[in-house]
Amino acid sequence: MRRSVILLILDGAGDRPVGGRTPLEVAETPNLDAIASRGECGMLSSVGRGIRPGSDTAHLALLGVDPFEYYTGRGPFEALGLGMELEPGDVAFRLNFGTVDRELRVLDRRAGRIPDARPLAEALDGMVIEGIEFRVAAGVEHRGALVMRGEGLGWRVTDVDPHETGVPLRKPRGEGPEDERTARALWEFVLRAHEVLREHPLNREREEKGLPPANAVLPRGAGIMVEIPSPLGSRGLRGAIIAGIPLVKGVGRALGLEVVEVPGATGGKNSNFRGKVEAAVGAADDYDFILVNIKAPDVFSHDGDFEGKTRVLEAIDRCLEPLLSFEGVVAVTADHSTPVSVRDHTSDPTPVAVAYPGGRKDHVRAFSETECYRGSLGHLNGNELFRALLDYAGLLEKFGA
Amino acid sequence: MRRSVILLILDGAGDRPVGGRTPLEVAETPNLDAIASRGECGMLSSVGRGIRPGSDTAHLALLGVDPFEYYTGRGPFEALGLGMELEPGDVAFRLNFGTVDRELRVLDRRAGRIPDARPLAEALDGMVIEGIEFRVAAGVEHRGALVMRGEGLGWRVTDVDPHETGVPLRKPRGEGPEDERTARALWEFVLRAHEVLREHPLNREREEKGLPPANAVLPRGAGIMVEIPSPLGSRGLRGAIIAGIPLVKGVGRALGLEVVEVPGATGGKNSNFRGKVEAAVGAADDYDFILVNIKAPDVFSHDGDFEGKTRVLEAIDRCLEPLLSFEGVVAVTADHSTPVSVRDHTSDPTPVAVAYPGGRKDHVRAFSETECYRGSLGHLNGNELFRALLDYAGLLEKFGA
Repeated sequence: MRRSVILLILDGAGDRPVGGRTPLEVAETPNLDAIASRGECGMLSSVGRGIRPGSDTAHLALLGVDPFEYYTGRGPFEALGLGMELEPGDVAFRLNFGTVDRELRVLDRRAGRIPDARPLAEALDGMVIEGIEFRVAAGVEHRGALVMRGEGLGWRVTDVDPHETGVPLRKPRGEGPEDERTARALWEFVLRAHEVLREHPLNREREEKGLPPANAVLPRGAGIMVEIPSPLGSRGLRGAIIAGIPLVKGVGRALGLEVVEVPGATGGKNSNFRGKVEAAVGAADDYDFILVNIKAPDVFSHDGDFEGKTRVLEAIDRCLEPLLSFEGVVAVTADHSTPVSVRDHTSDPTPVAVAYPGGRKDHVRAFSETECYRGSLGHLNGNELFRALLDYAGLLEKFGA
Repeated sequence: MRRSVILLILDGAGDRPVGGRTPLEVAETPNLDAIASRGECGMLSSVGRGIRPGSDTAHLALLGVDPFEYYTGRGPFEALGLGMELEPGDVAFRLNFGTVDRELRVLDRRAGRIPDARPLAEALDGMVIEGIEFRVAAGVEHRGALVMRGEGLGWRVTDVDPHETGVPLRKPRGEGPEDERTARALWEFVLRAHEVLREHPLNREREEKGLPPANAVLPRGAGIMVEIPSPLGSRGLRGAIIAGIPLVKGVGRALGLEVVEVPGATGGKNSNFRGKVEAAVGAADDYDFILVNIKAPDVFSHDGDFEGKTRVLEAIDRCLEPLLSFEGVVAVTADHSTPVSVRDHTSDPTPVAVAYPGGRKDHVRAFSETECYRGSLGHLNGNELFRALLDYAGLLEKFGA
């Protein structure tokens, strides 16, 4: 019997205890507990035991790819997530529009969270330096991406973004000859972009209003676009991705999944959780595998906000009824743990629960770190979970005869 | 938050039940149980499931190295552990000073456990044969190490030590041309060493006293010195190793850890357990990662002494209070199981417990084979444990963004 898979990623939901319990343990989550009760539970280390995953590497692993083989940096996924078209060999960066002074010292890495940087991106888009084409796109607020296209580019290039204020933009360095050439052209682009941006009408307008001008680009997270064999497409399966943040959409696009846009799905603390879950169930008519990422728990974790994380897990849980009546394979986990006490990703495994009609059932009755480890799935990694989910849905080929 | 890691290795502590219970289950170990109760437990297969590890390969794995990639033999680690300086390409052997008759038949593989073989080592040290320099160092009693230095040496060389008495020293064989050349020079060295040793005043003196002369060297365990990227040093971290036996010190030295010497730490049945544990806690001021090896459980295991192993586990446990007040990451495990019923290393996983302030906690309350497998760490290998410990200490880089 063929059915579809919905894999719900509660981004950064795994945690360590504060005062004896984790947010998932404190939160009232009857729907998550129902999924745990109906099926099998375990612990997931998306990229592997003792690895601190990024969101990019974790989602690659959860979609069946080995990130150690294919991951070079975040840039290409950000660019893809903003809708840019990339070709193998393109080198891409994540970037901020920021504010610098005359000595290129960073005054504000976010240019006062400028609400719409698209006109600035358009002013820079298409510049050519030393035969390399530069393409720029803007995302939400100060965020954007940069793509360099040309012969023989390298991606082992350091960040221009100094990641702090009061210090100048960093002249990028490259590791090998191709990287060095790429770094030189990138720096030239950053200097020319500053000249263009400081004269841009939008920035003049902002300065007149006393707002910080977005007069510089701060690229970081270089990576090269590589062709990644799609674990879904190569099996003739159709995948969809539902996410608020460009990075996760970009990982999906890199693997041939279609992005299903949901109004109000921002990737923020008050995203349209219900809309995303309903869209996932709706997409099951057209797609074999649907990954839904809800970013909010990770956002609260990075803020160190235990109470906020607990409340948002409850808010998400209230939106999960559609999953309880879904007749395909439902899996819930996190891409990684982001303990509020650490405010960053850790290697701690995350709970995982999988339920589908006719599937096995274990003794676990709650979705949490301290219950799921006793489940019948044991410990598994992202690739293992991905393949098992395809199998539960009747979509996995046999190895051998 | 950065803190230090203390990894305590109870060498060979894992076991199989005799009369229904293992030594760890019979022993009263309140401090080990307290560590298990405070944190997470699991089962460790240092080198991998279904692998019978040596102490060398196990410790390499526990220090973050893949022994399948870097291990060629025990020799270089023994030599390093005796304080010898090795260069990449050196071929090294563990050796015994033993007693042979005129036909080179082995009468005593340990020359009556000669108390100090250093003068004999000095008499052999520096010999040059076919352009190859031979360096010899003595360890405790009849033990020592041999290093060959020269161009194009091979390490696929069989043992000269026949591992039994009543048979002659074995002329070593080499696999490929470089190994063959190395084996030929080694055999020439063994013959010349016999000539030097049988005339040595120390041996004449022994013979006069009716003691077996240490008139031969019995090399075994050939290995080539290779440069192993240090999993600590490459991360800018400082490591220390506290151990009684040269082999474990040598593994530490090979990976750039500093050897912290503890008076009375012999690696024997009555080593200075308390001194080692106190030294580890003291070293945490200066080092990020401290591995402490306590050899005694393994020694009793090789003797097949269930009662002795049980009692020494209790004696060690009484010395562990300093770990309970340590504010860093504490991990306790064994490098491998050495069941008293087998008297040798087996692939049985060993219990592992990890505790640190703010860390996760599971339902396990005792440190033993039959309790720890139910813990939240599940099954993991040495590399995985090593990386996880760095993460708990806030010392692990993120993979991806």
